Amino acid sequence: MAKKMIAVDGNEATANIAHKLSEVIAIYPITPSSPMAEHSDAWSAVGKKNLWGQVPSVFEMQSEGGAAGTVHGALQAGALTTTFTASQGLLLMIPNMYKIAGELTPTVFHVTARSLAAQGLSIFGDQSDVMACRQTGFAMLASASVQECQDIALIAHAATLKSRVPMMHFFDGFRTSHEVMKIEAMEDSVIRAMIDEKLVKACRDRSLTPDRPTIRGTAQNPDVYFQGRETVNPFYNALPEIVQKYMDQFASLTGRQYNLVEYVGAKDAERVIVIMGSGADTVEDTVNHLVAQGEKIGVINIHLYRPFPMDAFMAALPKTVKTIAVLDRCKEPGSAGEPLFQDVLTAVTESVMAGKSTLPKIIGGRYGLSSKEFTPAMVKAVFDECAKKDPKARFTVGINDDVTHTSLTVDPSFKLQKKFIQAMFFGLGADGTVGANKNSIKIIANYTDNFAQGYFVYDSKKSGSMTTSHLRFGPEVINAPYLIGENEADFIACHHTPHLGLINMLKFAKTGAVFLLNTTHGPDTAWDTFPRLVQQQIIDKKIRVFVIDGYDVAEKTGMGRRINTIMQTCFFAKAGILAEDKAIQLIKDYAKKTYAKKGDTVVQQNWDAIDASLAHLSEIKIPAQVTSTKELRAPIHGKASEFVNTVTAEIIRGNGDLLPVSKMPVDGVFPSATTKYEKRDLSLKIPIWDSNTCVQCGKCAMVCPHAAIRIKVYDKSELANAPAGFKSVAAKGYKVDGEPMFS
Amino acid sequence: MAKKMIAVDGNEATANIAHKLSEVIAIYPITPSSPMAEHSDAWSAVGKKNLWGQVPSVFEMQSEGGAAGTVHGALQAGALTTTFTASQGLLLMIPNMYKIAGELTPTVFHVTARSLAAQGLSIFGDQSDVMACRQTGFAMLASASVQECQDIALIAHAATLKSRVPMMHFFDGFRTSHEVMKIEAMEDSVIRAMIDEKLVKACRDRSLTPDRPTIRGTAQNPDVYFQGRETVNPFYNALPEIVQKYMDQFASLTGRQYNLVEYVGAKDAERVIVIMGSGADTVEDTVNHLVAQGEKIGVINIHLYRPFPMDAFMAALPKTVKTIAVLDRCKEPGSAGEPLFQDVLTAVTESVMAGKSTLPKIIGGRYGLSSKEFTPAMVKAVFDECAKKDPKARFTVGINDDVTHTSLTVDPSFKLQKKFIQAMFFGLGADGTVGANKNSIKIIANYTDNFAQGYFVYDSKKSGSMTTSHLRFGPEVINAPYLIGENEADFIACHHTPHLGLINMLKFAKTGAVFLLNTTHGPDTAWDTFPRLVQQQIIDKKIRVFVIDGYDVAEKTGMGRRINTIMQTCFFAKAGILAEDKAIQLIKDYAKKTYAKKGDTVVQQNWDAIDASLAHLSEIKIPAQVTSTKELRAPIHGKASEFVNTVTAEIIRGNGDLLPVSKMPVDGVFPSATTKYEKRDLSLKIPIWDSNTCVQCGKCAMVCPHAAIRIKVYDKSELANAPAGFKSVAAKGYKVDGEPMFS
Ligand code: SF4
Ligand code: SF4
Repeated sequence: MAKKMIAVDGNEATANIAHKLSEVIAIYPITPSSPMAEHSDAWSAVGKKNLWGQVPSVFEMQSEGGAAGTVHGALQAGALTTTFTASQGLLLMIPNMYKIAGELTPTVFHVTARSLAAQGLSIFGDQSDVMACRQTGFAMLASASVQECQDIALIAHAATLKSRVPMMHFFDGFRTSHEVMKIEAMEDSVIRAMIDEKLVKACRDRSLTPDRPTIRGTAQNPDVYFQGRETVNPFYNALPEIVQKYMDQFASLTGRQYNLVEYVGAKDAERVIVIMGSGADTVEDTVNHLVAQGEKIGVINIHLYRPFPMDAFMAALPKTVKTIAVLDRCKEPGSAGEPLFQDVLTAVTESVMAGKSTLPKIIGGRYGLSSKEFTPAMVKAVFDECAKKDPKARFTVGINDDVTHTSLTVDPSFKLQKKFIQAMFFGLGADGTVGANKNSIKIIANYTDNFAQGYFVYDSKKSGSMTTSHLRFGPEVINAPYLIGENEADFIACHHTPHLGLINMLKFAKTGAVFLLNTTHGPDTAWDTFPRLVQQQIIDKKIRVFVIDGYDVAEKTGMGRRINTIMQTCFFAKAGILAEDKAIQLIKDYAKKTYAKKGDTVVQQNWDAIDASLAHLSEIKIPAQVTSTKELRAPIHGKASEFVNTVTAEIIRGNGDLLPVSKMPVDGVFPSATTKYEKRDLSLKIPIWDSNTCVQCGKCAMVCPHAAIRIKVYDKSELANAPAGFKSVAAKGYKVDGEPMFS
Repeated sequence: MAKKMIAVDGNEATANIAHKLSEVIAIYPITPSSPMAEHSDAWSAVGKKNLWGQVPSVFEMQSEGGAAGTVHGALQAGALTTTFTASQGLLLMIPNMYKIAGELTPTVFHVTARSLAAQGLSIFGDQSDVMACRQTGFAMLASASVQECQDIALIAHAATLKSRVPMMHFFDGFRTSHEVMKIEAMEDSVIRAMIDEKLVKACRDRSLTPDRPTIRGTAQNPDVYFQGRETVNPFYNALPEIVQKYMDQFASLTGRQYNLVEYVGAKDAERVIVIMGSGADTVEDTVNHLVAQGEKIGVINIHLYRPFPMDAFMAALPKTVKTIAVLDRCKEPGSAGEPLFQDVLTAVTESVMAGKSTLPKIIGGRYGLSSKEFTPAMVKAVFDECAKKDPKARFTVGINDDVTHTSLTVDPSFKLQKKFIQAMFFGLGADGTVGANKNSIKIIANYTDNFAQGYFVYDSKKSGSMTTSHLRFGPEVINAPYLIGENEADFIACHHTPHLGLINMLKFAKTGAVFLLNTTHGPDTAWDTFPRLVQQQIIDKKIRVFVIDGYDVAEKTGMGRRINTIMQTCFFAKAGILAEDKAIQLIKDYAKKTYAKKGDTVVQQNWDAIDASLAHLSEIKIPAQVTSTKELRAPIHGKASEFVNTVTAEIIRGNGDLLPVSKMPVDGVFPSATTKYEKRDLSLKIPIWDSNTCVQCGKCAMVCPHAAIRIKVYDKSELANAPAGFKSVAAKGYKVDGEPMFS
């Protein structure tokens, strides 16, 4: 039977399982876990049923503290219960987590691992939040990819029922939760085979009910509390084997084998990286690449983090290892070492003390905090550090720490050769670019043999800011949980013209790439609008450039201001997914399928837009020489402080990643009132005051979001020095000295 | 200048410093930290001023989450701010703690370390709560005794101002927070010398104010968050030296020297225990005892836990060490090891990897969870385990773990020879015994050269349950943070007669001890009321027994039902603190001082009670042979389940400590409705129904707390089988078949 493939993100993949296996879902949505809650809520609202034919009850509470309390209460009543959360939301659940674990109550919390607000708030991904709960008694299972989100979610639900230990199933926020991937879907038959009905009944039999009254949550005094706390040891001791058994059963059902800890690499590896979460895929890919070149290296990917599987870890670690680098995606200031590092050190040292091995070097590094990129080049840097005689005992990778000099030097030119096509799209927040790209992945996933991956970078300004979509597609499974890097993109699209003048986007283009630009300029005049740097890169990298006036086409084909279908058509036509005619047929078929319900007119309108897009898409002729003298636009306007010029400006320019540690405030304090320096050129049209029709109501000044119209009343004498063309009329109803004017 | 001595508990010692050094105190009282909040509130209410002559503002919030938010806000406004908390309360502060630390804001949280609710709730002490916050970026300083609470509180306040790293100052809940000790008081001049006004001003200068607008708490994106997080490294690196400098300055001011880590023991120790909190004093005392006998052992007491002082730790550890046992007062199920264990393992292993030392055996144990006793005998057991060829890698001490066999065997006969007198008092919750004993310590502290210590064991039933007061006094500083053990007490008092029939209290008596019993029986008849076991112990241990009818004396001297002054007088007369006449004079002087404001009549009433107490106190003549055949009263009444008979009964009997792990429910589930088995014999008087005056209003049955009077209406025919003496009258206004009766 052909495997059913779907294109989903990590959140949807996880929620699919959680909704199927729950009776009560208590939620308080928090980024980046919100889509799991929203999916569940929507599914229950339309009557989607769980494995037992019931519609799960979804309760939205007043905070994550309330959601955790609801989970605890529902579990006590014997209901299969789950929740979704992240970051501070997870922190608010800690008190209930101790109770749920202490009472040995099966449940799974699905967590999109996210940074914690410290010197600044961040909605992005790292494992600081889940690590802050490692002491609660919850078991912890990590997923590294969208496929694993789905699969390990099921294993977690199965294992918690068997072991009675509650589970935290986590995966990297945004990187995995929001990455859209083509994965093998889960069959209901697999879920049914993995879930033991006898264990479900056992849960119900342990519930609090007047039919079999018992008391739980009593106060325990010094005489017995300690003994009570030690009663759970056998349950934790048994858990690793239980999880592995379910992993094995899952493999026999699906062919997808997981292990508590996965080792990939040379059998005689001398350098081994230990890591957990999405970064593991990056390390694995890099290891495979380097082992093929004869390097004696390897990687251990931790799936079960609590209870920490000491035996499985030591069994997976090659005896030949000389240096272990443990990578933690979190920071605990003042600790003797980050948590995974300390656990690995403990496992290895205990084995040494037991006389079973000799002590290798073990070093610990931080990476990827708050969705900071973690690339094959960084992996290479870690392995290079391991090879040194005196590697740094503690390090960071991915930043330039010029203060305490923890950072490793990364050679950005190190790249893996991959068989996929890579496309980048620079859009404006809320302009439909991201949605269109998600749609493109679905089309590719459902109607071609290609695998596809999509990842979308927003900044926290969201609407109106820049979005960058990173799409990959190709014939093989894509393990690349990192962004498209410099000189890598086969296709680059700029949907919002002003970005081209500010952001150096063509640095991402590889030689021979295709560049698609939405511009009001036609193929003959567009070249002259490009900054010098853009022209230089086009010539140097032999980039083919296509232009289209998307807004014009949209307006003319009745699409209003929605350029997404138009730009998507151009992408399908020129990105090389399929031959152009086949690609266009595919997108037309898909439009038909999508809009069939709305009637033939809408379908035809979309088809017309597609045809018009192709008709208006023009390749421009590239001159042999750079003609522009225009530089990229300055990111800030006006005279600003040193800090704004060197820090804020670089962040606006998209170079924040390059800022060294010394440039950042130690306590999160920033100068205020700096928005005035940033001109984002958002508006395509600028309002102009018509002094003839103005009744001086004053509404325009309040309404205009760009402050293009401002109102002042002043003495006529002030007009003497007004620039030519400055418009004004006599003011109505104001009393100022002399003759009042209005403009 | 003579040192000023005071008798305070850990909470008061700490609050003294915190109130003196704060402008804002945000509270939400939680056991066992409540007294710090209550003291602060009371002091501010009466206008007690801080170091700068202001009265600190005390805000009680709706929860600890609110208290932490208030702290954060007040700190941002530049106010010196503190809070007090414990357990789940501390957990609710975690989100704000990340922010406060991330923003490098000086503050001190004073925490009475307490268990977290898991399989059961516990109000008692261990370090699970503070360990659950070790990742927040707060520095952590531990105090092991009441004296340290005061001294290290000051060091924490000084060091946070200098380092900008916020501090969690913690000490063991109940064991230290509620232990009353005679300590050297803190002079204001010392506080003033330790607090640098320039640093206070620096705090204010960093505050958020419209006068110097800045923005804090911004959202940081993946481009810069990681770098921002690493900016704090120099502050954490600098902190250990800052704390040590303040410790040294404090020593030069007071003569009391503290260090980041304290080593006590043999220079060439081969076995070393590492520990933190009150248990350290127990280990130190035991080490001193055993080193004097030639043992090569030692102990490291950790004061600074975060940032973990790797260098200071390795400098303190003797190079000769072969086995290290790290004791954690917390449990983290599923971890690779408890936190202090992992930190020590990390410090040592890194030193080994750096070629600076060889790898000793390092083992980790849990002790003292939820105020479980931790005694010199247990310390001995740990050192004995260290001496074994294959010591347990993970162990527990202080319980009998018959499930996973983690526990060490303890020889209870191992005791230290100490120069103090030990007295135990068995009272009834809320009968004034505890208050009287705290008062006794104050008298001893203020008016004699003796040192004194008081610790009070309540069970969580509180009022109406048993209290046990443990008092020690003697010529030397008392380092004994554990209860008085079997065969150790010089003096035992039983204030509530029925306890003698249930609890084996004389097992605590040493040979030649004095036993004081409050009983309605005089010296001639009391002997015959004792159970066989009590008589046997009195004879075997040559115990002198004194009896007094405390309630009778109280009533006759106008003290109502308050027996505390009477029993206290008997204690002063017979416990050997001072010669009897001097002791009585002291207690009279103290009563005069205490009640002078209330007038001579009240003073005289107290003096009369004191005199009457002595007049009614009689020593009984001890027969040569046991005469009683009565056993100790069964702890439960009626036919009960196996669980109630073997678990509940032992808890009631006071033998809960002896229950092995296997007897405890794994998930905190207990049978309900078990109070019916426990008869506590609380009431001294029993109501009797007077059928002649009864108007059948029914109020008595509702009012009687012991259900001694119950009401039924029934048919007269039922009376046929009533026992002789069963009283009844004709019922008024009820309609049942036949002739209704009432009783
Ligand atoms: S004040 Fe502005 S909104 Fe009002 S009539 Fe004049 S231009 Fe229009
Ligand atoms: S019913 Fe009880 S309270 Fe009422 S009169 Fe009779 S004895 Fe007194």
